[in-house]
Amino acid sequence: MQIIALPHIPLIQTDDDLSDIILAAAQAIDLTLADDDIIVTAQKIISKAEGQWVKLADVTPSERALELAATTGKPAALIEVILWDTATVIRAVPGLLIVEHKQGFISANAGIDHSNVSGEPDMLLRLPVDPDASARALRASINRRAGVSPPVLIIDSHGRPWRFGTVGVTIGLSGLAPVQDLRGTPDLFDEPLAHTDVGFTDQIAAAASLVMGQAAEGCPVAVVRGLPFEIDETARAADVLRPKQKDLFR
Amino acid sequence: MQIIALPHIPLIQTDDDLSDIILAAAQAIDLTLADDDIIVTAQKIISKAEGQWVKLADVTPSERALELAATTGKPAALIEVILWDTATVIRAVPGLLIVEHKQGFISANAGIDHSNVSGEPDMLLRLPVDPDASARALRASINRRAGVSPPVLIIDSHGRPWRFGTVGVTIGLSGLAPVQDLRGTPDLFDEPLAHTDVGFTDQIAAAASLVMGQAAEGCPVAVVRGLPFEIDETARAADVLRPKQKDLFR
Repeated sequence: MQIIALPHIPLIQTDDDLSDIILAAAQAIDLTLADDDIIVTAQKIISKAEGQWVKLADVTPSERALELAATTGKPAALIEVILWDTATVIRAVPGLLIVEHKQGFISANAGIDHSNVSGEPDMLLRLPVDPDASARALRASINRRAGVSPPVLIIDSHGRPWRFGTVGVTIGLSGLAPVQDLRGTPDLFDEPLAHTDVGFTDQIAAAASLVMGQAAEGCPVAVVRGLPFEIDETARAADVLRPKQKDLFR
Repeated sequence: MQIIALPHIPLIQTDDDLSDIILAAAQAIDLTLADDDIIVTAQKIISKAEGQWVKLADVTPSERALELAATTGKPAALIEVILWDTATVIRAVPGLLIVEHKQGFISANAGIDHSNVSGEPDMLLRLPVDPDASARALRASINRRAGVSPPVLIIDSHGRPWRFGTVGVTIGLSGLAPVQDLRGTPDLFDEPLAHTDVGFTDQIAAAASLVMGQAAEGCPVAVVRGLPFEIDETARAADVLRPKQKDLFR
């Protein structure tokens, strides 16, 4: 398996056509995309292309935001924007606000931060409104332009209970099921495996994060080549989420 | 970055020399290991080489194991072996026993299972006693034989709160720090990043898991090539673990 970071992706502006930009970046390193590649894109460039900007100075904090600002020590206007995208506050302690996003996943700050998104520190970037739809649209657009239809993953970096350090996870996808169920597949000794649901696209997200870089390197798109997969046209990123009543750690 | 699964690793027996086996498997595909590679090995072959077998029929369950067997529906003898390696039971519900291993990490069944470890369903395989020491020994042995000293990761697959699907994580290592602290590294706009501890070796573990396969494929060793890293000779796998008092999700 190869994971190839695409260099030379420019800073993305609202309404940029990401399929053009990705195809040009691939061409610049003589990479011809194929149906059996997987395209992994950082959430930030999707949000930027979709114009998901919020100017902090325009935000009036609610009572709830002011309370959580007192608890966490974070700016009330930032918390207000986080609450716009929040289904449930999971933990609020000094320095940390962990929420269930309206899209269902649990992470710090509802995926909003202001590092690396603009030269203006006063701007925030929210997640794409519907990352699965964004992935589908990007995949369709690449198919129209290049005649191939590799799966597309949109990834973010999430912290974890129990272990330090963020890891790449999938928040939007087209073409791949996020969990691959190996239950019942015989093992080396032909005994059925009892329990081997694998977080397939999250492992791809983690792998791609390694080459995409988090900071000054700035490679927001990677191509995974040589990893076998089966296409799933109906899968959604939310299929990876444990329903609240089956989750022991909220 | 390339991730190369080593095919043709034989079934490992107690006291096998894994460095010989890995070097032979690499040579068989004309791969010459280098200092800037990273060697990723599945926990199971380390445990097998170290003879960490337990015969279920020889185990007498304690009172505590019998209680937890009633709660979880799992065999009491299996639970007894899990308890040998358990610091704290984190959750026990029907079908699921999540514990803090004496080595500090939290996972189902203290890393013990009986899939894919032997033709005899009555045998269990415990984790290596000291996976960091195992990684150091393997690295030193490869260095003696081949004159190179690539870092070594020993990985397992853990389930996660909130999200379905297991992902590869590091349980032992030599030569790499598990968390890479990018705090203060300037981003694209030269603003210091507020919070970017990255789960570096866990992302490598997830990436390697993709090619190593969980079941019949059986490639328990992978080589990561082309990923920049800095050697850290003092790091321990446990450096990734959140201290109990800083963990909001126990």
